Amino acid sequence: MSDRVPPGFGRDAEGRLLIAGRAAEDWVADAGDTPLFLYDSALLSQRVAAFRAAMPQGLGLNYAIKANPFPPLLAHMGTLVDGFDIASGGELALALEAGVAPARISFAGPGKRDRELEAAIRAGVLLNIESAGELARAGAIADRVGQEARVALRVNPPFALKGSGMKMGGTPSPFGVDAADAAAVIRQMQGRPFRFEGLHLYAGSQNLSVEAILESQRQTIALAGALSAEAGVTLAHVNLGGGFGVPYFPGDRELDLPALGRGLAEAIGDRPAALGRTRFVLELGRWLVAGAGVYLCRVIDRKVSGGETFLVTDGGLHHQLAATGNFGTVIRRNYPVANASRAGPGAGPLTVVGCLCTPLDRLADKVDLAGEPGDLIALFHAGAYGRSASPERFLGHPPALERLV
Amino acid sequence: MSDRVPPGFGRDAEGRLLIAGRAAEDWVADAGDTPLFLYDSALLSQRVAAFRAAMPQGLGLNYAIKANPFPPLLAHMGTLVDGFDIASGGELALALEAGVAPARISFAGPGKRDRELEAAIRAGVLLNIESAGELARAGAIADRVGQEARVALRVNPPFALKGSGMKMGGTPSPFGVDAADAAAVIRQMQGRPFRFEGLHLYAGSQNLSVEAILESQRQTIALAGALSAEAGVTLAHVNLGGGFGVPYFPGDRELDLPALGRGLAEAIGDRPAALGRTRFVLELGRWLVAGAGVYLCRVIDRKVSGGETFLVTDGGLHHQLAATGNFGTVIRRNYPVANASRAGPGAGPLTVVGCLCTPLDRLADKVDLAGEPGDLIALFHAGAYGRSASPERFLGHPPALERLV
Repeated sequence: MSDRVPPGFGRDAEGRLLIAGRAAEDWVADAGDTPLFLYDSALLSQRVAAFRAAMPQGLGLNYAIKANPFPPLLAHMGTLVDGFDIASGGELALALEAGVAPARISFAGPGKRDRELEAAIRAGVLLNIESAGELARAGAIADRVGQEARVALRVNPPFALKGSGMKMGGTPSPFGVDAADAAAVIRQMQGRPFRFEGLHLYAGSQNLSVEAILESQRQTIALAGALSAEAGVTLAHVNLGGGFGVPYFPGDRELDLPALGRGLAEAIGDRPAALGRTRFVLELGRWLVAGAGVYLCRVIDRKVSGGETFLVTDGGLHHQLAATGNFGTVIRRNYPVANASRAGPGAGPLTVVGCLCTPLDRLADKVDLAGEPGDLIALFHAGAYGRSASPERFLGHPPALERLV
Repeated sequence: MSDRVPPGFGRDAEGRLLIAGRAAEDWVADAGDTPLFLYDSALLSQRVAAFRAAMPQGLGLNYAIKANPFPPLLAHMGTLVDGFDIASGGELALALEAGVAPARISFAGPGKRDRELEAAIRAGVLLNIESAGELARAGAIADRVGQEARVALRVNPPFALKGSGMKMGGTPSPFGVDAADAAAVIRQMQGRPFRFEGLHLYAGSQNLSVEAILESQRQTIALAGALSAEAGVTLAHVNLGGGFGVPYFPGDRELDLPALGRGLAEAIGDRPAALGRTRFVLELGRWLVAGAGVYLCRVIDRKVSGGETFLVTDGGLHHQLAATGNFGTVIRRNYPVANASRAGPGAGPLTVVGCLCTPLDRLADKVDLAGEPGDLIALFHAGAYGRSASPERFLGHPPALERLV
């Protein structure tokens, strides 16, 4: 397998990788060191624009901060999307610091602590309620602080998003309330200090099948209609989840966005009458930001062992755990990788490893790259679940640098 | 499967878990919050004492900092072991801050940067050289700073430690120099600013078979003898690696330390004549510290979904990634787990999850525990590869607290 430079990046006449129109080596010189995560703001903007162009008018777009909470990136995303989904009190603080209005923030997570619930209620953030127990705690806190809590109910759907990297429906789950119990929990909100706004359903993530995503969206809309009728409530909004996948691996293809948009427009057009005035929202993290990110590390050593060639870099799983296959992956496959200092194949396949003293630290297996000490190696699709999802302190190396460009 | 409280811990009359003789809840009250890692210094001391009692006299014991770099724990280990193995410039700084003399520190790692080599040479730390390229860089730095570099050669053994959690020999590897090339690299040291001290070999880790460990130690000693003869050098020391496993999973049994000690004494007794004055060293991380650590988190919610009961805690993979099976594990199994607030089984099996909004965050599957909101849950064998090997910033929750008691 030779190198793979995804769309949005190029090479100059000398074969050096260009990121946002500038050589990777120049970005590193500016930042002062490697490893370095670069996020291209123009690619972020283009991604959201492509989404808006393809999706039905009026569809809301939320960014799930967990995918990448780098503050300059959050500030940029805040100018592009309608809302932010947070998963902790720490992410609430990051969203507020990025200048996002609390009215645009929604908070999901199965283990919200009382202090997190209180901070969210005080700020006026929407709580996606995950259980009857959490609802009772939120009610007690709302009583105590004398402030109504904005709530939606997170429902564990009785169907999965088929073929997802992570299934989050159709199975017993710590997330949300089973659909069969949802109406009863909504009724428990009555007469209590809650403003009920709608539903949150999340059936799976990292899916590359248009048909599977559309099927789960159609099922979600039907379920929302049924629950609205069963509980006798109006739904101001329904969060349909996300699930849009990223083509990390050889053979993967980008989602057909226009086909997705047409299908979702049709599903919304056919919605039950009870949802006539409901606003629908998609919640995307990885799909919005992964492709805009590149992780750059430098080759420290080239060596041959047992006939196999290794490039040892100053990067590794402490910055890019997911790319090494050590984060929820059963079979390790390569993310797109290229030599950022020179184009073309090398003298045969080689293996790119990180600097950590563990065999887990493998960035690319048997790729046909050129590579000498001093070269920069680029790992693509590095904009999501990179630095913030990696064990940064493991083995005591410095953190990676990050820049939004 | 019911709860498993390993040796070294107990319960008081009310069924509360005792750690270092005191109720877990009292330790949490002292620390001020959960989640909390507690490391029992008496158990650390006992572990080292058991090692010394079983192993041949004169055998050196190094602690591999990567297993747990918590500074108070390092300071305690410094009083017990002979040397520290480090894997980065960051770990060098930690070791020196813990008061360890540089002469007792050795530095392995396939991607040492020039600035790390320079810091180690200036401090007088032993470098385990990983390649001919690294040797050349170390030599240039030693020339420049006008100081001899203490070096050992790390050799990639042509055999594996059979049945290890991680194999680090018998295969092409980024670690060390293939045995076939070792003598040539040792010869390159001659006439250069190096003081050659010996060899470092590491064939695998997390192994629970006495026979497999002994076989690899015998092979290592034989290989060291052959290399000493081939290169025409005396070996002041040979680091035999480690590989001692910890009984994480149901059915696992503690290593038979006396049997290991007897076998190693025999292997050293039978060593080649060329190694007559060689000092042998074992390098252990996980085995020394895992059992002394407990990770305590608190139950936030108890819920039923699809007939399955979940305890949602304030802990999770952001602190204890390895326990969730998301760090180099193919099949997830439970670490020992118990309710620290009350003894006895519950009303049937339940699943303990963390607070993160991802299905990866699962701490224990289908264990028969009691568990209500407010209870403390204890995960054992948490002293190694816990906080420092976990993606602490993932989802923006606060770091776990740590205490040496």
